[in-house]
Amino acid sequence: MGLKDSNFIKACYGRNDGPVPIWIMRQAGRYLPEYQAVREKVTFLELCRTPDLIAEVVKQPIDRFDLDAAILFSDILTILEPMGVKVGFPEGGPEIEAPITGPDDINRLIDFDIEAEMPYVMNGVKKIKEILPDKPLIGFAGSPFTVACYLIQGKGSKNFDFAKKFIHKYPSAARRLIDFLSVITARYLKAQVDAGADAVQLFESWGGILSREDFKTMSIDASNKIFGTLASAEAPRILFVNNIAPYLDMIKDVDCEAVGIDYRTSLADAARSLPGKAVQGNLDPAVLFGSVEHVREKTSRLLDSIDDLSRLIFNLGHGIMVETPIESVYAMVEEVHNYRR
Amino acid sequence: MGLKDSNFIKACYGRNDGPVPIWIMRQAGRYLPEYQAVREKVTFLELCRTPDLIAEVVKQPIDRFDLDAAILFSDILTILEPMGVKVGFPEGGPEIEAPITGPDDINRLIDFDIEAEMPYVMNGVKKIKEILPDKPLIGFAGSPFTVACYLIQGKGSKNFDFAKKFIHKYPSAARRLIDFLSVITARYLKAQVDAGADAVQLFESWGGILSREDFKTMSIDASNKIFGTLASAEAPRILFVNNIAPYLDMIKDVDCEAVGIDYRTSLADAARSLPGKAVQGNLDPAVLFGSVEHVREKTSRLLDSIDDLSRLIFNLGHGIMVETPIESVYAMVEEVHNYRR
Repeated sequence: MGLKDSNFIKACYGRNDGPVPIWIMRQAGRYLPEYQAVREKVTFLELCRTPDLIAEVVKQPIDRFDLDAAILFSDILTILEPMGVKVGFPEGGPEIEAPITGPDDINRLIDFDIEAEMPYVMNGVKKIKEILPDKPLIGFAGSPFTVACYLIQGKGSKNFDFAKKFIHKYPSAARRLIDFLSVITARYLKAQVDAGADAVQLFESWGGILSREDFKTMSIDASNKIFGTLASAEAPRILFVNNIAPYLDMIKDVDCEAVGIDYRTSLADAARSLPGKAVQGNLDPAVLFGSVEHVREKTSRLLDSIDDLSRLIFNLGHGIMVETPIESVYAMVEEVHNYRR
Repeated sequence: MGLKDSNFIKACYGRNDGPVPIWIMRQAGRYLPEYQAVREKVTFLELCRTPDLIAEVVKQPIDRFDLDAAILFSDILTILEPMGVKVGFPEGGPEIEAPITGPDDINRLIDFDIEAEMPYVMNGVKKIKEILPDKPLIGFAGSPFTVACYLIQGKGSKNFDFAKKFIHKYPSAARRLIDFLSVITARYLKAQVDAGADAVQLFESWGGILSREDFKTMSIDASNKIFGTLASAEAPRILFVNNIAPYLDMIKDVDCEAVGIDYRTSLADAARSLPGKAVQGNLDPAVLFGSVEHVREKTSRLLDSIDDLSRLIFNLGHGIMVETPIESVYAMVEEVHNYRR
C-alpha cells in the first residue's frame, strides 16, 4: 500500500473510508519518558541539528501509540539563525538576541539557501523516511506572522504587544517583513517535501491575537502565498490556526486541503464552515488530565459530533501538555481507531 | 439631568438617541503621566487601598478626555486577601503565595464580609461619586474563572495550564471553587452598587482559553448566578469576555444588559448575535499606535459597521496599552463624539 492510500492522506483529500486517522500536535515531546531520556544527553538545539536524533524522537510516539502520521521534529524558529538572528532556547522559552524594533532592522535579515544552510532538517526528513517508510510524514513551518511575533517581541509573550504595535506603527514595514518571511517559509516547506515529507502543516500559533483586518493582511494573504507555491507538490497542505473562531469565514478560501482547528472552536461548526476541506482537531489537551473514562467519553462525543468522517483527522486542539498521563493518550488513540458508525 | 438619562446608561438599555458614549478599559493607567506621578508616591496595593487616591486616578482620564463613564480603580485580585490568600503585585504581574493545587486547598479559602474587610473599595466608590457626581460610575469584578486562574496558577500565564488541568483532574472541586467565588463576587458587586456604582462590569479576562463545554460550566453559569442576584439593582450589568468569538452563541442568554466584545471579533456580527443587548467595544488597542489619521479612519469605519447605534458603547477591545500616545486617545474620543449618521 502506497502512502497515498493511507487513511491520513486520504482524509486530507476528503476521501477516507477507513478508521479516522489520528496524530497529536507535539507528539514527540516532554510528556514521553523516552524523549526526556534523549534530552538528558543533548540540548534542544543539538537535537534539532542532529538528523539521527531527530528521526529517533519522531519514531518514539509512533512506536508507542501507532499514530497515523509522523511529524518532523524541529522548532518554528530554527529558520531564524541562517537569517542572521541569534536565538537561544533556555528553559523559559526562546530568546532572540537582537529583536526587530523598527523598519531598518528588517534590512539586516539575510536571505539564504535552505539546503545549504539547514541541511540537518532535510537530512532529518530523509532519515525519518528511512526508518519509518510506511508512515506519512508531516513537514512544518511557523507562519510568517508567528515567526515575526518572536522576531519583534524577542521572546514568548501573552499578547505579543510589541508585534501588534509594530503592525500599526510601521504598516508597510510589517508587510515587508511578512513578505520576506513568506518567501523563505515557502522555500523551506518545498525543501521538506522534496526531501520526502508527505504533507505540510503551517502553524499559525499566534495569529489569534490579531483583529480580523490584520489577520487578513498578516496571515491569510501570507498563507495563500506560501501554499500557492506548493500547489503542484502533491503533498496536502494543512493550516493550523490557534484561536481560529474569529476568522473562520476567511479560512474557507485559503488555498489548502486541510485546516487544523483549536480546542475552543466547535469542530462541527468548523467543518460546516469549511466545505470541501478536511478538518483536523480538536480535543482540549487538558481533557487528558481527567480519568480514562472521561478521556474516552470526550473523545467519542467529539467523533459523534462530526457528520462527515471521510474528511476528519483527529488531533488535539493544541499541543499535548507536559505531564500528560500516558494512559490517557493510549485511551484516546484506541477510542479513535475503534470508532465506528 | 439624572444619570439614568446619560448616554452611557441609556445605551446600556438600548435606548440612546444622543452621541455614542465612550469609555476605555484601563482608562486610569500607566499610559497617563498624571497616573504615573501618583504611582511614584505609592505602591499599586497602597493605591488600591486609599479611597482618596482611588478617586483621584479615576477622575484623571475623565478630566482629560471627557469620557462618558468612570470606572472604579482596583484590581480583580483584591478580593483574595480577605479570603486568606496573600497576593503580591511586583512589576512582572501578580504573585500568589500559596496557590491552590488540589481539592483540599479550597477548604482554606475564608468566606468574609465585604463591607467589613474591603471598606477601602466602598469608600473609594463613595469618594468618586462625591467628586464626579455627574458621571456614571462602573463598578467591577473579575469573573470567578478568571480569579480561579490566578488562584491555581499562582501568577499570570499564557494559557493558565494549571487551571485548565485542574478542571479535568478535579471536576467537582473546580465547580465548588467557582461556586464559592461566584457567591463572593455577587456580594462584592452588590456592595459596589449599594455604595453608589451606576453599572457593573464582570471581567471574563481568561475564559477565552476554555473549550466551549468548559466555558458553559465555568463561565456562563457563574455569570448568570452573579448577575441574577443583581437583577433588581437597577444598575446595568455588562459582561466582558476577552476572546468571545468561540462562545458568542451562548452569550445571548446571559442575564445582562450589555456585552463587551474583544478586538478580534466582528462587532457587527456580535451585535447581530446579541439581539436585545447593548454591545461595547471593540477597537484594537494596537490601532492607537498608528498615525492620528489611521486612528480616526479605523474608529469611524468601526462606527459605520454598526446598524443600531442606540445600543452601542464605544470602547477598546481590550485594555489600553502602556505607552499609548495620548494624541491617539484624543482623536478616538473626538471621532466617536462627533460621529453622526
